[in-house]
Amino acid sequence: MTAFAVVIFLFLGSVHNFSTHKKPCAYDESKLCHSPVANAVFSCIAFILGALTSVLSGYLGMKIATYANARTTLEAQKGVGPAFIVAYRSSAVMGFLLASLALLVLYIAINVFKLYFHDDWEGLYDSITGYGLGGSSVALFGRVGGGIYTKAADVGADLVGKVELNIPEDDPRNPAVIADNVGDNVGDIAGMGSDLFGSYAESSCAALFVASISSFGINHEFPAMMYPLLISSMGIIVCLITTLFVTDFQKLTNIKDIGPSLKNQILISTLLMTGGVALVTFVTLPVHFTLFDFGREKHVKNWHLFFCVCSGLWAGLVIGYTTEYYTSNAFKPVKDVANSCKTGAATNVIFGLALGYQSVIIPIFAIAVAIYVGFALAAMYGIALAALGMLSTIATGLSIDTYGPISDNAGGIAEMAGMPHSVRETTDALDSAGNTTAAIGKGFAIGSAALVSLALFGAYVSRVGLDTVNVLNKKVIIGLLVGAMLPYWFSALTMKSVGSAALKMVEEVRRQFNEIPGLMEGTAKPDYATCVKISTDASIKKMIAPGALVMVTPLITGTFFGTETLAGLLAGALVSGVQVAISASNSGGAWDNAKKYIEAGASEHARLLGPKGSEAHKAAVIGDTIGDPLKDTSGPSLNILVKLMAVESLVFAPFFKAHGGLFFK
Amino acid sequence: MTAFAVVIFLFLGSVHNFSTHKKPCAYDESKLCHSPVANAVFSCIAFILGALTSVLSGYLGMKIATYANARTTLEAQKGVGPAFIVAYRSSAVMGFLLASLALLVLYIAINVFKLYFHDDWEGLYDSITGYGLGGSSVALFGRVGGGIYTKAADVGADLVGKVELNIPEDDPRNPAVIADNVGDNVGDIAGMGSDLFGSYAESSCAALFVASISSFGINHEFPAMMYPLLISSMGIIVCLITTLFVTDFQKLTNIKDIGPSLKNQILISTLLMTGGVALVTFVTLPVHFTLFDFGREKHVKNWHLFFCVCSGLWAGLVIGYTTEYYTSNAFKPVKDVANSCKTGAATNVIFGLALGYQSVIIPIFAIAVAIYVGFALAAMYGIALAALGMLSTIATGLSIDTYGPISDNAGGIAEMAGMPHSVRETTDALDSAGNTTAAIGKGFAIGSAALVSLALFGAYVSRVGLDTVNVLNKKVIIGLLVGAMLPYWFSALTMKSVGSAALKMVEEVRRQFNEIPGLMEGTAKPDYATCVKISTDASIKKMIAPGALVMVTPLITGTFFGTETLAGLLAGALVSGVQVAISASNSGGAWDNAKKYIEAGASEHARLLGPKGSEAHKAAVIGDTIGDPLKDTSGPSLNILVKLMAVESLVFAPFFKAHGGLFFK
Repeated sequence: MTAFAVVIFLFLGSVHNFSTHKKPCAYDESKLCHSPVANAVFSCIAFILGALTSVLSGYLGMKIATYANARTTLEAQKGVGPAFIVAYRSSAVMGFLLASLALLVLYIAINVFKLYFHDDWEGLYDSITGYGLGGSSVALFGRVGGGIYTKAADVGADLVGKVELNIPEDDPRNPAVIADNVGDNVGDIAGMGSDLFGSYAESSCAALFVASISSFGINHEFPAMMYPLLISSMGIIVCLITTLFVTDFQKLTNIKDIGPSLKNQILISTLLMTGGVALVTFVTLPVHFTLFDFGREKHVKNWHLFFCVCSGLWAGLVIGYTTEYYTSNAFKPVKDVANSCKTGAATNVIFGLALGYQSVIIPIFAIAVAIYVGFALAAMYGIALAALGMLSTIATGLSIDTYGPISDNAGGIAEMAGMPHSVRETTDALDSAGNTTAAIGKGFAIGSAALVSLALFGAYVSRVGLDTVNVLNKKVIIGLLVGAMLPYWFSALTMKSVGSAALKMVEEVRRQFNEIPGLMEGTAKPDYATCVKISTDASIKKMIAPGALVMVTPLITGTFFGTETLAGLLAGALVSGVQVAISASNSGGAWDNAKKYIEAGASEHARLLGPKGSEAHKAAVIGDTIGDPLKDTSGPSLNILVKLMAVESLVFAPFFKAHGGLFFK
Repeated sequence: MTAFAVVIFLFLGSVHNFSTHKKPCAYDESKLCHSPVANAVFSCIAFILGALTSVLSGYLGMKIATYANARTTLEAQKGVGPAFIVAYRSSAVMGFLLASLALLVLYIAINVFKLYFHDDWEGLYDSITGYGLGGSSVALFGRVGGGIYTKAADVGADLVGKVELNIPEDDPRNPAVIADNVGDNVGDIAGMGSDLFGSYAESSCAALFVASISSFGINHEFPAMMYPLLISSMGIIVCLITTLFVTDFQKLTNIKDIGPSLKNQILISTLLMTGGVALVTFVTLPVHFTLFDFGREKHVKNWHLFFCVCSGLWAGLVIGYTTEYYTSNAFKPVKDVANSCKTGAATNVIFGLALGYQSVIIPIFAIAVAIYVGFALAAMYGIALAALGMLSTIATGLSIDTYGPISDNAGGIAEMAGMPHSVRETTDALDSAGNTTAAIGKGFAIGSAALVSLALFGAYVSRVGLDTVNVLNKKVIIGLLVGAMLPYWFSALTMKSVGSAALKMVEEVRRQFNEIPGLMEGTAKPDYATCVKISTDASIKKMIAPGALVMVTPLITGTFFGTETLAGLLAGALVSGVQVAISASNSGGAWDNAKKYIEAGASEHARLLGPKGSEAHKAAVIGDTIGDPLKDTSGPSLNILVKLMAVESLVFAPFFKAHGGLFFK
């Protein structure tokens, strides 16, 4: 982070050869703005603030989760209700912690930076974008590194434990079991948290940046400028009320109610938030105002912005429900995938891949509608607001998502501590509801990443002063084509990382079972630490290549091929990446739940395919293992790819504008 | 075809309400051009001509292949050399037949149409684009229908025969074996042929259309207008000489020489063609001329066009060699995939998918360079020429490709006819070389499809009169996003078609083995016809949905959302589709050859993983089966998706320009 902060300073400082003199503003040339060096320094500070906030949230989230999972196991002795309450309240702490910390730090940063920038709001919000870059850079570590960590351990533990030796999941005899449980926290809590934090920080920064060069900023209307932050604040209040519906307003006693209650959380928060958005919009915004629209002015009314925010909010709901339909084994798609296991692993994989491809259709239309509404009503500001709308219920989304690994680990602890079978059954019930909600959370994360990166793309284009990004321009079309390829390159790297780390893990687990006498009988203890070390080393070493691809590509493209090729690249990566991410994530979720469907044997059809250990079940386990890196490493990591490249381009935009395109010069 | 011809007539005729009066030309308003009704009638004729030519080539190709495969089996009794010569000469007949028929019919059509259009070259070449649409519509049947046919039979035959009953491939006891062999011809010969014919016809039409509104057309310089056709003619001569290198200039006796000889064909044809292009360019073209460049004029010199053609030609070579590197088991990537079979099918699939993703990188850069060179030197005309350059060696490409199914079927015939084991070994050697060259052929097909559809995209944009296709336009960006989703929707449909048809085939094969007494012992004959019928029915029924998606999407988008959204849609489908197609095709090829690597056991590493029937081999078979629909159905069908949507948009462009965009009106 320190090294990259230096890079930021050098690139941005060099725009006017490190001169510290004031210069005419970019959007209002009659005024004087602060020097690029000031911008460079404050961008670095914002960058580090964003990174630290993200790290802090991830750290505290993992702390909470690891306290909570043991407590959930203990409460599970009393029954489903108490265990659920503990798990959900703990996960809510993570959700609210992240949402409020992100907002608080951003608000403080703006006000402190203002002490220096005074009425140079252009420079102020230009620098503030560093906050988003910091958040997303940490997300790169969380999502990619965390994803490799957790899946290397998971795949490795399953391939030897479940497939070769036929011992149960989370069995303490399996040397990789601790690494697997640690991984759940690293990947699903720190990774997911930093991903959503990054989206949140970036969409706020994109909205603030566009607002600062619109009439809000030029007229110095502070309440209207703060509209994006007020939307997020209202979101926290709405989520607080929403949480009470499941923890206090009703008492859960039946296992079957857990899933629907969690899913209702999303619906309730969306409904309440629609009212909340109306309130904030009509109280804080002037009735008429003008927005910056790529060099032109766009006249907008306050109710336009209400629809922008709501289009994102409701698109999120549509994405959530679609994800559920395609990944929950209560519906036909997953049942079809389970059914295809009858003829073996090959047909299971073919149907699962087809399901993932098909699941892209509705989310893309939902995102397209949100983009159209946002764009038509309020240009790029509208897109940023749509992204903020989708993220406004982030606290609830994260609570539901974090709940998954907490109850998953609670089950692991029950198994390892040798607690009665009934405890494990209770935690399994909690976990199974968490699986579908985790898929919904991933859907949200991808959808918001798409909107955020489009908003950042718009801000980038405004910042470098392009009027059009013309597909018929040779520089743009090659950028578009190469950009659309990047998600594949990136996925190839992350999937191979998981694959080779898992192979190492398999060898180590096999070695321990062969060399440690009494391990299989349970009289000797395995060497957990070596497995943890393999996962840790793999996650750190193997994230260098994909991380470098994301961080270096915009810098090289902008510096050597210029702003237009970079614009094409960002657009290509966005439209291609979102498809790969959704399909990978949903194929993985469907395979996971097809396997669980056969294992649970809850219907006649499922019993026909099962039980555990049948040929169909073996085929389902193979599908599940293939899905692991797709849904937990390469798929969600693509969120970071599309967002981080866009925000990095935005932060370095002044440099590319001044010195970019060396190759064509 | 007749129904769609009526649709073409109604849409195009309605542009000026079926008025038959002459009207001012679109690009030179001082002149009078023929009425839209004349354009509609001649477009229909050209469409039907293109379709019939494609059908005829496919039909003759399959005839030749089915004559040739039995002869190859007979010659295989004499040795490798004679068998190879028969197989390769027969496949060359297909290659040259298609290339020359395509050229001849197009040339005749232009000259016959000219009798009516006289000096209205704009109307003439506008109508001629129907030829490309006809070719690609048949390719839809060939690629999608043929792909479903062949893979339903192949997957079905393998799942029961090889996996469940452990009988060899092509064993006559397997009821699906005839359907499998028929499928090789339908999918790989008729499908591939119609695909490349479509690309060839479309890139010629795109080049001719752009030329007709450039100085060539305005000044009525017939030799310069015919430049694209002369390039293709030169290609046929070059390929003829190239073929002699393998059939006459050397004598093949060693099995090991087959693969390298076939691969050398591509290099030789590329080298010779470079000279051929220079000859045609400097003889036929004027030294200076102007080209149409989206409403502007672009001054060009003849040597510029030389580089445009060569950029495509050499990009094709790079794509061919990259495909070979990633799909041949002589290189590291496939060996790594084979190695991952040690830990089971799941890691095999993970590594295979990652390989497919990775294999996209170099081809995309090669295509991007060709696009940049073509675009920079001669705008959209340059892109069309780059596509023609890549396709100029189509006769050699198709010969190499057709050679695969001929020798594959020769092996099947040897097995079924109960010929000595040595004959089967000879045909297997021929087949194994054919596998890699088939993958190279697919690489060519995809690369040329990308260039062709970009050229068509440019022609479409010119025809509807858009000056820019701006990603920052709300109509364009939603088109781009939805367009990038279409390859996924399409692949989901085609993969599920193969999956469900294969399930039916499996049930039928199982039923026959259960119900026909003496089948397993070889004393009773299976009911081959029912299996052929299942494949035939499935291929026809199941291609309706994906076919409709491709045919209807441009019509709906253009009619309701207008020309800009359609432009975005085409660009999105292009940049996303090419990635999905390449990765699917190469993952499939790699799994296939990883399996063959283990089976052949030619190195110590391979013997460690094998032999046939080992756990690693079983895992490899699962990967191979997953790859079948990817590499032979959904992957190559995407070529058709990107090309057909683009050419359809071009043909219907006058209608969309006049009446499109109802939804926004």
